[in-house]
Amino acid sequence: GMNAVFTVSYEMDQALGTDYHRRFLKFLRRVQDEDLMVAGSMTDVKGDRGLSPSRQADPDMYVRVVEKRPEGIIVRGAKAHQTGIVNSHEMLIMPTIALDEADRDYAVAFALPVDAPGVYQVFGRQNNDGRKLEAGQIDCGNPRYGQVGGEAVTILENVFVPWERVFMCGEHQFAGLLVERFASYHRQNYGGCKTGICDVVTGCTSALCKIHGVAKASHVRDKLTEMIHLAETLYCCSIACSSEGQPTASGAYFVDPMMANITKQNVTRYAYEVARLAHDLAGGLLATLPAEADFEEPTVGPLLKKYLKAAGGVPVEHRLRLVRLLEGITSATPLLESMHGAGSPQAQRVMILRQGQLEHKEKLARHLAGVD
Amino acid sequence: GMNAVFTVSYEMDQALGTDYHRRFLKFLRRVQDEDLMVAGSMTDVKGDRGLSPSRQADPDMYVRVVEKRPEGIIVRGAKAHQTGIVNSHEMLIMPTIALDEADRDYAVAFALPVDAPGVYQVFGRQNNDGRKLEAGQIDCGNPRYGQVGGEAVTILENVFVPWERVFMCGEHQFAGLLVERFASYHRQNYGGCKTGICDVVTGCTSALCKIHGVAKASHVRDKLTEMIHLAETLYCCSIACSSEGQPTASGAYFVDPMMANITKQNVTRYAYEVARLAHDLAGGLLATLPAEADFEEPTVGPLLKKYLKAAGGVPVEHRLRLVRLLEGITSATPLLESMHGAGSPQAQRVMILRQGQLEHKEKLARHLAGVD
Amino acid sequence: GMNAVFTVSYEMDQALGTDYHRRFLKFLRRVQDEDLMVAGSMTDVKGDRGLSPSRQADPDMYVRVVEKRPEGIIVRGAKAHQTGIVNSHEMLIMPTIALDEADRDYAVAFALPVDAPGVYQVFGRQNNDGRKLEAGQIDCGNPRYGQVGGEAVTILENVFVPWERVFMCGEHQFAGLLVERFASYHRQNYGGCKTGICDVVTGCTSALCKIHGVAKASHVRDKLTEMIHLAETLYCCSIACSSEGQPTASGAYFVDPMMANITKQNVTRYAYEVARLAHDLAGGLLATLPAEADFEEPTVGPLLKKYLKAAGGVPVEHRLRLVRLLEGITSATPLLESMHGAGSPQAQRVMILRQGQLEHKEKLARHLAGVD
Amino acid sequence: GMNAVFTVSYEMDQALGTDYHRRFLKFLRRVQDEDLMVAGSMTDVKGDRGLSPSRQADPDMYVRVVEKRPEGIIVRGAKAHQTGIVNSHEMLIMPTIALDEADRDYAVAFALPVDAPGVYQVFGRQNNDGRKLEAGQIDCGNPRYGQVGGEAVTILENVFVPWERVFMCGEHQFAGLLVERFASYHRQNYGGCKTGICDVVTGCTSALCKIHGVAKASHVRDKLTEMIHLAETLYCCSIACSSEGQPTASGAYFVDPMMANITKQNVTRYAYEVARLAHDLAGGLLATLPAEADFEEPTVGPLLKKYLKAAGGVPVEHRLRLVRLLEGITSATPLLESMHGAGSPQAQRVMILRQGQLEHKEKLARHLAGVD
Repeated sequence: GMNAVFTVSYEMDQALGTDYHRRFLKFLRRVQDEDLMVAGSMTDVKGDRGLSPSRQADPDMYVRVVEKRPEGIIVRGAKAHQTGIVNSHEMLIMPTIALDEADRDYAVAFALPVDAPGVYQVFGRQNNDGRKLEAGQIDCGNPRYGQVGGEAVTILENVFVPWERVFMCGEHQFAGLLVERFASYHRQNYGGCKTGICDVVTGCTSALCKIHGVAKASHVRDKLTEMIHLAETLYCCSIACSSEGQPTASGAYFVDPMMANITKQNVTRYAYEVARLAHDLAGGLLATLPAEADFEEPTVGPLLKKYLKAAGGVPVEHRLRLVRLLEGITSATPLLESMHGAGSPQAQRVMILRQGQLEHKEKLARHLAGVD
Repeated sequence: GMNAVFTVSYEMDQALGTDYHRRFLKFLRRVQDEDLMVAGSMTDVKGDRGLSPSRQADPDMYVRVVEKRPEGIIVRGAKAHQTGIVNSHEMLIMPTIALDEADRDYAVAFALPVDAPGVYQVFGRQNNDGRKLEAGQIDCGNPRYGQVGGEAVTILENVFVPWERVFMCGEHQFAGLLVERFASYHRQNYGGCKTGICDVVTGCTSALCKIHGVAKASHVRDKLTEMIHLAETLYCCSIACSSEGQPTASGAYFVDPMMANITKQNVTRYAYEVARLAHDLAGGLLATLPAEADFEEPTVGPLLKKYLKAAGGVPVEHRLRLVRLLEGITSATPLLESMHGAGSPQAQRVMILRQGQLEHKEKLARHLAGVD
Repeated sequence: GMNAVFTVSYEMDQALGTDYHRRFLKFLRRVQDEDLMVAGSMTDVKGDRGLSPSRQADPDMYVRVVEKRPEGIIVRGAKAHQTGIVNSHEMLIMPTIALDEADRDYAVAFALPVDAPGVYQVFGRQNNDGRKLEAGQIDCGNPRYGQVGGEAVTILENVFVPWERVFMCGEHQFAGLLVERFASYHRQNYGGCKTGICDVVTGCTSALCKIHGVAKASHVRDKLTEMIHLAETLYCCSIACSSEGQPTASGAYFVDPMMANITKQNVTRYAYEVARLAHDLAGGLLATLPAEADFEEPTVGPLLKKYLKAAGGVPVEHRLRLVRLLEGITSATPLLESMHGAGSPQAQRVMILRQGQLEHKEKLARHLAGVD
Repeated sequence: GMNAVFTVSYEMDQALGTDYHRRFLKFLRRVQDEDLMVAGSMTDVKGDRGLSPSRQADPDMYVRVVEKRPEGIIVRGAKAHQTGIVNSHEMLIMPTIALDEADRDYAVAFALPVDAPGVYQVFGRQNNDGRKLEAGQIDCGNPRYGQVGGEAVTILENVFVPWERVFMCGEHQFAGLLVERFASYHRQNYGGCKTGICDVVTGCTSALCKIHGVAKASHVRDKLTEMIHLAETLYCCSIACSSEGQPTASGAYFVDPMMANITKQNVTRYAYEVARLAHDLAGGLLATLPAEADFEEPTVGPLLKKYLKAAGGVPVEHRLRLVRLLEGITSATPLLESMHGAGSPQAQRVMILRQGQLEHKEKLARHLAGVD
């Protein structure tokens, strides 16, 4: 988000003589000086997806400027699926699609504290979220840290934004560029982020295979190999995407946009396959393990500890904790984050075809076939 | 389970002059007369998977006969992953692997009420199980019925079984046959059962695509087609498996064992891919939807209803209910059930290769190549 | 083809009072009495696929009636991709798409000897077809039989067909039904036909793995298992499709049309994956083996026999023959036949979605979600 | 090959005080000065794969030193699958596996002209190779250039190599390192090479879709997108692999060995899937097109030109040429080259698991689970 506004505000100023880049740099300096976390905030709630923002029955389905005042603007609308926003200091609001002249009120970008007056953050439910409120430390799955992700619906109910925090206001012709920049930067980093999660999934699965006494079976080793292979493919995509980056007019580098889309598209497939392989190897206990409280219950607790003991002298609690960790990181919530974060699969496919240079490829084929 | 014991008890009696089939028929008649639900119960907790039952450090890692008395037997051990057992009347305990002479105490099959003295049923945790205890009717996902599956660890702590309920006791040479029969019948039915779940997943996804206004997009239609295709492939496998069934000595039909393994192996793949496609089409809301209570909260409730309203005049509650249903039936718990129920994927692969008649296939190739 | 015309001619007669079924029965009896091979002939050359037959710039892009005479009709047009037609006695020509009133001249079905006056059969090229004209017996790949398939373009240049051989002439409203019947019968049998080819591919691969001394490697056994699994899945689809067949008005059974499309769709995927796995296991020699003549050349022949000798005392000629057989049956020609025979993949997807009962599936989901 | 010997000869000299790097630099300078093509030559014919070189029944199954003389060495053996060797000037022979003390005679690396005395190059057969000898210019598929690849069996029958061209002779402990270096460099470049071929396949398919009038169908566009996506993923892998390269002791950079294996492993899958999609879109004509000579035959030629004419006024010859190009580059020969070139799939999987740092990944999981 920060990179995208950095580069586009510069190019807007160059083209239109606006003053956005200076304002953004001022914001950026404060973020760096005070070590603030900023949530890049793009996805509108969208209403009817077949209609553009200004043609919706309810004009608030995309965030928009409802009033301009001497000291700032009043905005209204809502952003969905805002990952990490409730544990951020600031949010950087941007438009979510290319816009035309009729949609100019929707061409608005700005920064705001996540708890500014008129802002409501409604945290969504996650897989097994209730377990965090329970007494134990095991069934929640990831006792040291929160769950992967953590999303909110962010509602802006007539919120005031001072001009110094506004980085786009009406320049609809730059909305598409801003979206593409943000999407590309965001899609690039999925190959790094999700490789890390896959590594934990693979490691947790490998540890459980040892506990179950099957780590040396050839099919187990082959499936662990496949999990590593898929994760490393994602990592390759991210590294290549950055490595092929080019400087923009502002001086900041921009990742390779084709490769950014390739990266994210692969994440939407491989995160699921890695989870599936983990389920295969880790076994049915992932779906049937009794509650940690049952292991402390006077009558059945000792029986459970006897019958579910781990191979190789590993304490049964280790087995429980690893099962619960794996249950959590391969559940629907993190998978859906891999699927839809930074844009849904079809969004990447549209970009891949657009950048795929079919005409050039046809020319290569015609040359080889001798019909050019 | 019932089919397997029906056919094997008959064949045991024929071979060994035992009296098991009569006992089983008596049990079967009562089950039919009283319309009882019987849980087929096979998977032992297994301890160290590299060692046979009698060679385990703890001899109770597989269910075994610890004492024979004039009026019956005393058994000890535990069965894991027992789907539906807590809502059954009876359970039919069987051995879980082929056994040799040294393991004869583990060659035991019998029927018991699920709450017989000395039996403990410890229900496992499921995805979002805590939501069923909450006040609302929506977030639990499937308000009319329970979640798919529902598994327990079944512990038999020195349980008495009268002889009239014992259907195998020491005939280790028939344990492998009983396992194969049970596994085949069980794997056959997965293609029917999971096709039904896939149909609900597909229907729920299709309904959500209408609510989101994207049902006519070509990629949406193509992915729905794929979901149908995968589900129907599973269904084909089950139908073929039954259609190629053959009568056994007892008169009961036995499904085609190769096709039973083919069916189940495909389930372990397609259930996941159907869920993945559902996640793709249904959108990020599946992972980020606020709690139903938030929709009734005085301040943010009306705002959520405004911003998350459904296209086409569908009430927002319908959207919520469909999202929660889909979240539940595509979560880790039912997927793991598709993966490991009726045997883990590798168990099927072992059977597929064993029944694959490679020698015969090589002969066909040699004939065509002119080297026979 | 025969089944399709059998059932549709009966239904046409019932609905319209025509005389087609009697004529067809007469033809069928002769076919059975004289044990004739009949090529079902459907796919027109189609010209511009965006236009219907009567709207083409050249009206001959679909086979049509150009003149009706008292003793018969004159037809013109061409059928593409006619498998096995040059080694058949008769061909049974049918329309290739549903037709409307404007296309009534294209609603024509009839039987003709494949060498009737005015008929031209132009045999297409196949993979490595030239090797059949070479001196040796090995490099051609399949010395006892022809290659899989064998297709021709069949041109009908003002061909006369007597009325007794005409089974549809102008009844455009039955063209779609005839196409669907033929396609379904044809797609059903692909699961049987291609399973047979896959069995030979698997057997040939297994024999080569023994010759290479790698048959016991765990990854080899796992890939052979996968090849068997995929082939058996195809077989399941065909068996289920026939098993669920229903009688038509004529008495002849009609396969399950959904399952017929499922069968063929899977063939378009699995035939390729089985070939890919065969290439993996059989090794690079499949692409680099010298010509059989080189093995007989005085200088390099003995060296080749030394260096390419097979493990386990198998004669080197066996290795050569098996490599050439596998090269042929996993080459592009048979794979393309699996892809496009009985209709291209997208044709099946259209039918799968059409028969997929999405409304019914949505209803199931709404019921479970409590919103019906 | 050159890179591998460059870096390993330097490291051998450092460790053992040998003189190989100087000799290699001299050879390298001549190669550069005279712009020679050098074939890296590694894969031995291997005999029984279960036995090491010195334990084979026939000791010549791996290239070995049979005699050392003051002026050089005499070598014997054969290398299989030598791509491009017949159109190279020199070949650089290397060992094909890690070797122990008993195998020291097999630890030999050297450069030789491809036509040195005692060398026999036996060119292998390729898909449709006979068509190059036919009269026409179309059916051969790639009229301007040769087919992709082109492999020979290279037999060394008591060949003399002067010491100045010997770069390893007995240092068995460096054979494994040399193999790993060569394999990694070689596997890296597959992501670039095969992306290029995929681009031509995609372009040719796209051009044919236009000729068939189906280029705008949504399923066609989606499959073209998939072809681009897969090719770009391969490209990402290669770029990342080079980008993460590190300098070796000799100063030459070494690619990231994990990423090299990831790259090649993906090639063995995606090259096949891209070909499959091309077959899907390009249509059955790829398997059934008549010979170019038939189009010139007086009777059927004009009829073929009428019935197989292309949409949009494209000359029929263009259609023929594009079909034949696509037939050739998606045939078994280039696919097998993608499968086995630079090492078979299982070779990569062994390396991926070895470099996968499972212990480290388990540690990450244990930390998160709170059991470290």
